[in-house]
Amino acid sequence: MERIKPRTLSGFMELLPEPQSQMDAVLDVLKSTYALFGFTNIDTPVLEASEVLLAKGGGETEKQIYRFEKGDTDLAMRFDLTVPLAKYVAMNYGSLAFPFRRCQIGKVWRGERAQRGRFREFYQADVDIIGDGSLDASNEAEVVAIICETFRRLGLTRFQVRMNNRRLLNGLFQWLGLGEKSGSVLTAIDKLDKIGREKVEAILTDEVGMDAEKAKQLMDIVSAENPDAMLDTLLGKCEALDLGIQELRKVTSLLPAFGVPDDKWRLDLTIARGLDYYTGTVYETTLLDYPEVGSVCSGGRYDDLAGYYTDRKLPGVGVSIGVSRLFFILQDQGLLRSEAVKAPCDALIVPMGDVLPAAAKAATVLRNAGIRAQIYMEQKKVKAKFAYADKLHIPYAVIIGEDEMAAGTVSLKNLLDGTQETLTAEAAAEAIRGGLKKTDTPVQEKERT
Amino acid sequence: MERIKPRTLSGFMELLPEPQSQMDAVLDVLKSTYALFGFTNIDTPVLEASEVLLAKGGGETEKQIYRFEKGDTDLAMRFDLTVPLAKYVAMNYGSLAFPFRRCQIGKVWRGERAQRGRFREFYQADVDIIGDGSLDASNEAEVVAIICETFRRLGLTRFQVRMNNRRLLNGLFQWLGLGEKSGSVLTAIDKLDKIGREKVEAILTDEVGMDAEKAKQLMDIVSAENPDAMLDTLLGKCEALDLGIQELRKVTSLLPAFGVPDDKWRLDLTIARGLDYYTGTVYETTLLDYPEVGSVCSGGRYDDLAGYYTDRKLPGVGVSIGVSRLFFILQDQGLLRSEAVKAPCDALIVPMGDVLPAAAKAATVLRNAGIRAQIYMEQKKVKAKFAYADKLHIPYAVIIGEDEMAAGTVSLKNLLDGTQETLTAEAAAEAIRGGLKKTDTPVQEKERT
Repeated sequence: MERIKPRTLSGFMELLPEPQSQMDAVLDVLKSTYALFGFTNIDTPVLEASEVLLAKGGGETEKQIYRFEKGDTDLAMRFDLTVPLAKYVAMNYGSLAFPFRRCQIGKVWRGERAQRGRFREFYQADVDIIGDGSLDASNEAEVVAIICETFRRLGLTRFQVRMNNRRLLNGLFQWLGLGEKSGSVLTAIDKLDKIGREKVEAILTDEVGMDAEKAKQLMDIVSAENPDAMLDTLLGKCEALDLGIQELRKVTSLLPAFGVPDDKWRLDLTIARGLDYYTGTVYETTLLDYPEVGSVCSGGRYDDLAGYYTDRKLPGVGVSIGVSRLFFILQDQGLLRSEAVKAPCDALIVPMGDVLPAAAKAATVLRNAGIRAQIYMEQKKVKAKFAYADKLHIPYAVIIGEDEMAAGTVSLKNLLDGTQETLTAEAAAEAIRGGLKKTDTPVQEKERT
Repeated sequence: MERIKPRTLSGFMELLPEPQSQMDAVLDVLKSTYALFGFTNIDTPVLEASEVLLAKGGGETEKQIYRFEKGDTDLAMRFDLTVPLAKYVAMNYGSLAFPFRRCQIGKVWRGERAQRGRFREFYQADVDIIGDGSLDASNEAEVVAIICETFRRLGLTRFQVRMNNRRLLNGLFQWLGLGEKSGSVLTAIDKLDKIGREKVEAILTDEVGMDAEKAKQLMDIVSAENPDAMLDTLLGKCEALDLGIQELRKVTSLLPAFGVPDDKWRLDLTIARGLDYYTGTVYETTLLDYPEVGSVCSGGRYDDLAGYYTDRKLPGVGVSIGVSRLFFILQDQGLLRSEAVKAPCDALIVPMGDVLPAAAKAATVLRNAGIRAQIYMEQKKVKAKFAYADKLHIPYAVIIGEDEMAAGTVSLKNLLDGTQETLTAEAAAEAIRGGLKKTDTPVQEKERT
């Protein structure tokens, strides 16, 4: 037979069983945390009609999309979970209860330039709260609590949510009289994190055509070390700016009530999150020890989720975690606890001799008690059987020989400390359950601090 | 703005939140049952190089594949989870422990003719046990236990696993002297379920060219009402047939030890599962009240998982559940318990007046206690707030007015029985937890019997 070399495409994450169990643990934390906040899960198709998926059109993303024809249908793979949400809400408006709180955790595809730690197929984990006609700004505060609780449950402590408000930025630009230049100014200051103040100021003066003094004034404001004090000095200058500051402060004043610790968020007046779409609070989330990674959880408030599908006004607020990238960083930096690797089973049943029926019965007893059990059924030497348990970090062996079979017992061996006892399969199940509770390691990360 | 009509492609399942929560419950049962049997989860890419995915080549499937080019890469979407498994094992052979027990639950894509209850994007849930060079036949018995336990945990009782053995069929054909006709005969009798005995016999005589008497003899054997008694009469006729019968009986004799009830499996000598690939036990699973649906869980023993990628002999045994189709049938036949629909949260926190900070604090207390809680933050009338809870079947309301805020309490209302009590948020969390335990409905299905 002619052989093909098996390979996985570059930019496509495929993990060995151990890191996969860590990735699954991360996805489980995201799912359960989103559920705690009352989000309902939806599962939209990976493939959509291109016409529908690209209804909003344009942008950098369009070039990256996996799009093709099959038969006479023009198809595209989803590139985010927001457009499918817009479609879902517009299509099912009459069947949904608003505010509609949905989460979706799934893969999306973008044919980006392959790069270490950048993926073409990657998981996003989104939460959005969609209002019918209106949505209270307090939802924008709760979103910060969701981010913080999610990261806390992932075992992360060294992160910070950076917040800004688009209405505030618009007010600021209005007060500075930037008029039509506002869009270009926004795009420029959005880059401050990446290219630094000097280069942004050069863009503002040379490319955007701002007066040098005004550019300096703007930069002084947005990059102020104490943005809150800076905002105080701006109050009363311009009504639009005042309204923006008030809205931002309404949201941030609610953060303590939502249990958001003070050190887990800060104002950052440079955050814009692109030209269109967002209209109120915007969020980025930074890993404090890895600022170069950029934001690992971003989003914001928007006033029109699905304008390209429906004339209903559907305002919302949401954030998205780039899960594959976050996982890659945690793995790459050695931040995933090796103890959190889950063995594929809790107990390996090791038959010694012609005792398979007894082994199968013991497996059934264990499984009925909720113990993940596997029988080693191959005719191998004892050493090979225990080497298998060792390789997979299985914590218990349940050994059954002819003596045990005759007595209706099993020998339970704790493979971590080597102790062994003879007991019934039911008692072994209890002992394993007790032992597993003790070694439970829910935490994903050892902190650098 | 020009509007695009939002739509989902035909053949692509997209569920409203309530059925989605039922689907999620089904997927959770599959995942946890597979874990109980010690299978490790893997997650292979949706997109693969076409050369790799189609290495095995040929067949009906190839026409149905979603295949396209992007840049200079020829890509294809996975059409099953077996080829990706073969690739994974061949690529990662040195890093895996054998027997390698893997499960994968994920979507696959096939551009089949759209048809009610048939999907182009659908979930498969696979388990496979892969040996390194050899794999004990007892694994073929355990697979039946896995199928039965999975269906039992889904709440299904009216199903049956039908088993056959390819070595037995080959022995039978050898004894009957079918020689080169064996392949065509196999294909013909595989259709017995669908087209009936008369038509199969016509194919055997008219198309395959079998002697009429021999065709009748073969049909008498494979469609015997008591296949086990029939096999007894065949013992000693032909060595190859004897070996096949012995192998089948070795596997079925282990079924009681694995806890497989007698009424949950039967021999069916007509099952072949296609020409290639399978070499030992083969399985199909029928819903007894819906035989017309065909098999909802199929698979078998194979001797060469990845011959097109590697010269290592990797025998295995596995089965695949067609989850989307199974779910569609359960839903279509009204077999999903409506009580199993999970509300998106356990408690709706209803602020009355200017009490949002107290509401947010109560939400945090509830969530920390593991209660899925949502605050109704919109400025709506009381009636609208409770209509929302009602529409989503939320079982508890936690009402906070100015009195409660001043007293540091909440009013907990059981929305199912209308009772209400005033207590602390912590006590409310306890009460909700107790109440939820009572109403837990793990069962998915009401049986028709």
